[in-house]
Amino acid sequence: AYSEKVMDHFQHPRNVGEIENASGVGTVGNAKCGDIMRIFLDIDDETHIIKDCKFKTFGCGAAVATSSMATEMVMGKTIEEAMEVTNKAVMEALDGLPPVKVHCSLLAEEAIHAALWDYAQKH
Amino acid sequence: AYSEKVMDHFQHPRNVGEIENASGVGTVGNAKCGDIMRIFLDIDDETHIIKDCKFKTFGCGAAVATSSMATEMVMGKTIEEAMEVTNKAVMEALDGLPPVKVHCSLLAEEAIHAALWDYAQKH
Ligand code: FES
Repeated sequence: AYSEKVMDHFQHPRNVGEIENASGVGTVGNAKCGDIMRIFLDIDDETHIIKDCKFKTFGCGAAVATSSMATEMVMGKTIEEAMEVTNKAVMEALDGLPPVKVHCSLLAEEAIHAALWDYAQKH
Repeated sequence: AYSEKVMDHFQHPRNVGEIENASGVGTVGNAKCGDIMRIFLDIDDETHIIKDCKFKTFGCGAAVATSSMATEMVMGKTIEEAMEVTNKAVMEALDGLPPVKVHCSLLAEEAIHAALWDYAQKH
């Protein structure tokens, strides 16, 4: 039922962890299943480029796979470019997700936006 | 929000994997979140003792932690004893779970029962 890319990112998630003294941190919860997701960004204050991005979640395989892919996709981008990495783009990069799992994939997008917002508020 | 034992079993899950030619296999789905769980049992045909038990899931951290604990709890038990390892007992062994995550913990109990049933049907 899951694409090879989803299974790859689920079983070998990229960028799991925390960033100490991160420039921005975003924490979101999923009302539907009660899971939480936290994303840490390290942003260059001059260029606004995302130098590092890590995530932690208690969520399911779909949440892990989309976060893993989303963190790879925003890395090296500017804040403005990262804001345009949509949930839809992440799901496409993973060759799709079953409809029942789409709500899990929203966690990553929401957490990245929350972390960018957190950075913006501090600057 | 999560107990130390839950976090330990989530971050270092025991008995993850598959058993080739397992005596019994149980696969269950969680209607509430769409996650799935599969449990493999290796049962001694003479003594009815569970010699090995492994699980695979796409479920969340609570599903991983309860399955990890549940597989440890049924290992070495007879079929009859294993049938009595309830979801409640597993949650107690983990020092509890938040109410919103109780449905996740049911996956392990249901999958073990399904695997025992699978074994019984073959014998
Ligand atoms: S949310 Fe699906 S198993 Fe926990």
